[in-house]
Amino acid sequence: MVDMLSFDSTDAAYLDELADYVAVPSVSRDATAETMRTAAQWLAAQLSFAGGRVVDTAGHPVVRGEWLGAPGAPTILVYGHYDVQPTGDLAEWRTPPFELRVDGDVMRGRGVTDDKGPVFIVLKVAQAFIEQEGALPLNVKFLFEGEEEIGSPHLPAYLREHADELAADLVISADGAMWRPSEPSLSIASKGLVTLDVEVSGAATDLHSGRYGGTVANPVHALSEILAGLHAADGRVAVDGFYDGIPELSDERRAAIAAVPFDEDRYRDDLGLDGLFGEAGYSTLERLWERPTLEINGVLAGGKYTVIPHVATAHISCRLVPGQRPERVLQAITDHVLAQKIPGVRVAVRPDKGGVPAYTIPAGHPAIRAATEALAHVYPDQDVLLAVIAGTLPATALFEEVLGAKTLFFSFSTADENLHAPNEFMRISRLREGMRAWERLWRLLADGPHRLAPVRGDGTR
Amino acid sequence: MVDMLSFDSTDAAYLDELADYVAVPSVSRDATAETMRTAAQWLAAQLSFAGGRVVDTAGHPVVRGEWLGAPGAPTILVYGHYDVQPTGDLAEWRTPPFELRVDGDVMRGRGVTDDKGPVFIVLKVAQAFIEQEGALPLNVKFLFEGEEEIGSPHLPAYLREHADELAADLVISADGAMWRPSEPSLSIASKGLVTLDVEVSGAATDLHSGRYGGTVANPVHALSEILAGLHAADGRVAVDGFYDGIPELSDERRAAIAAVPFDEDRYRDDLGLDGLFGEAGYSTLERLWERPTLEINGVLAGGKYTVIPHVATAHISCRLVPGQRPERVLQAITDHVLAQKIPGVRVAVRPDKGGVPAYTIPAGHPAIRAATEALAHVYPDQDVLLAVIAGTLPATALFEEVLGAKTLFFSFSTADENLHAPNEFMRISRLREGMRAWERLWRLLADGPHRLAPVRGDGTR
Repeated sequence: MVDMLSFDSTDAAYLDELADYVAVPSVSRDATAETMRTAAQWLAAQLSFAGGRVVDTAGHPVVRGEWLGAPGAPTILVYGHYDVQPTGDLAEWRTPPFELRVDGDVMRGRGVTDDKGPVFIVLKVAQAFIEQEGALPLNVKFLFEGEEEIGSPHLPAYLREHADELAADLVISADGAMWRPSEPSLSIASKGLVTLDVEVSGAATDLHSGRYGGTVANPVHALSEILAGLHAADGRVAVDGFYDGIPELSDERRAAIAAVPFDEDRYRDDLGLDGLFGEAGYSTLERLWERPTLEINGVLAGGKYTVIPHVATAHISCRLVPGQRPERVLQAITDHVLAQKIPGVRVAVRPDKGGVPAYTIPAGHPAIRAATEALAHVYPDQDVLLAVIAGTLPATALFEEVLGAKTLFFSFSTADENLHAPNEFMRISRLREGMRAWERLWRLLADGPHRLAPVRGDGTR
Repeated sequence: MVDMLSFDSTDAAYLDELADYVAVPSVSRDATAETMRTAAQWLAAQLSFAGGRVVDTAGHPVVRGEWLGAPGAPTILVYGHYDVQPTGDLAEWRTPPFELRVDGDVMRGRGVTDDKGPVFIVLKVAQAFIEQEGALPLNVKFLFEGEEEIGSPHLPAYLREHADELAADLVISADGAMWRPSEPSLSIASKGLVTLDVEVSGAATDLHSGRYGGTVANPVHALSEILAGLHAADGRVAVDGFYDGIPELSDERRAAIAAVPFDEDRYRDDLGLDGLFGEAGYSTLERLWERPTLEINGVLAGGKYTVIPHVATAHISCRLVPGQRPERVLQAITDHVLAQKIPGVRVAVRPDKGGVPAYTIPAGHPAIRAATEALAHVYPDQDVLLAVIAGTLPATALFEEVLGAKTLFFSFSTADENLHAPNEFMRISRLREGMRAWERLWRLLADGPHRLAPVRGDGTR
């Protein structure tokens, strides 16, 4: 098989087209409905070969389309988003955020790597297939949302209401990012997430630290005790039951992680730290990929004035690994916190809704095998790394629950490309590498040893 | 001796006059220079019998005046302030803050009890003496500042530059407040104050709690450990050396405090608490009056989003008692905090400038004896309580250092009159009680067994 998609000769034309898309300031948090619709319409037009259309929802519209001309072949759902993060401080941008600017090997602009560039790759691959072969190698449904950067508030309802229409054997996400630029990688898991507040309250109002100091319990003292008690000195989470259900890390997995080239000193230096720290008994990469965490994200209490604050609140988040159940983790933390009897204050634990379990796709899944081969084809001199996304991707759990389908992350963004930050960029070479990889991936999923087995949608399941 | 100052017949006229003063919104934090000068000029006009004048300083002007027509008699310096606190939320005020409104037994308005009403009392007493007797019983210098509510930033320099001109045998402050409305009280001590920040820093920037969680020390965890370690479980401050220099509480003083009628249950209920808490081995009133405290006033760190904050800061204040030296207390806390080796973070302690030692005036001082007798004269059926101001009054240390004079607090404000809060008020009866008490106090200090001994200013010291 020859690579039909020769990107090099048309780089400039592609960049011009992508620039039009980046120019739409589709900041889901702030933009007008009209601006969001402009971005959605740009996408729908690109999907004309697949009946592309803008579909109204309770929030910013979604863009849908489908090409179903391969009867008997597997069906995939391609997911991505057209909204972008706010620019942040414009003074920190070296070039205007909504003008695509080429700077050496990279192109810079808000959204270029999250997620406009990666989505653009899929569009161009699909269009090239249609132009050059008159067909795609498999059935493809497209779903692009406009609210990913604000937590996809309307996606669950939309998915549930259109579950039949969106049925697919696999979801492939054009969102996500490769772990680092030094080698190709695939994510085989992402961590779950639960968040909660611990609130300690004392008197009805803030009290003058002189007129009342020493006679009443100080909620900040009490909260500090609670927070200090969440971890043992060796970095383990000290909450009974927190680690329940987690299988022990196998020697095989330890060996695989140990084999990943990872420079701890550089990681430490890049963060501006004197030393790393974490749960005893695990390496940094093991902690990042395989172990759950409990982090205090912030404390809100009083200020720089002489009061005894009447309330002190901490926000806490836990990243979960397979085996942990969100509601059980929240309960264990609640029990642990409330078991500490601190005189003179009231303690409340307020779990947030929407806990997300960890997500995994087996390393032996056809999608991982096909994707590995596709990447090996494009990057022949490099091993493909099976990595874990230590962040949380709520859509994966949602797709699994509603569509019964696993999600393959196949983005050509890289985690170091200033996602969500000023001067967001994407490596230009990733465009053509991405197109070649998607082409190969689709062919592999359609036919051959990694052909996707149908999971639903045609009545065979 | 007969009370010459019969206030009752002229209540209404007095209230009208005070209303003009309250109507000037002399909020030192926000007001224009012109507004502040209007308030100062009102005061200077009231002091026409004493050469009243507005004196420019680096900040808002001071008001000065002196009546020195009693050669051989003692000299006192009357201190007060004409600035007021901001109103806060206007919606919380039941009546317009800058209109003096009579409401039953009280008069309401911003500044009415802090410090416009209490200063008004002194002015009227002095004017009545001049009108009725043609003289004051002793030499009186007046010093009213316009920056008390913003920490008196220019008072120290003004005092030092005019120390000779302000020399007096005693300072009497018309600022301050009686402890509670149930009986007359005098303050024989106030606590000192030191403040500091503890800052714990980690990575160069906030880190995503997923992408980095579990691999680096979290500054909020570390700060919580430090803060939790500042106290022992029994409420004692766990900092070595914190209590150094404090004499043991005598049985006599314990007995005197135990004899003060103090309803702990009501104190607790008024604060909306289920229980009180403090240093083991001391009663609530002992903790408030006789023991130093260390309170965390606030914590600033991250927020309600999934990051590992790169820095977490706590603001801490300590109220000091006699025997403690501010710089030693700060050093002890610094040593204690820095001795805790927490891996992976940097810890800094930043003491604020301007530590204030505790202040005391002996119970046997002629000023306390005379003031006790003056209060007993006005409130014949009640014991006069010798109380401690658990807050800090930096001016007292300043007057002692610069003028060599003790300060007597003789205000007819009461601590429950919403000082600094919406709906500030003052009990109307306090006006006439205050005038009768000041009259008696001045006569007693001028002549008789409590006559003030000269401390300086006439070369005898």
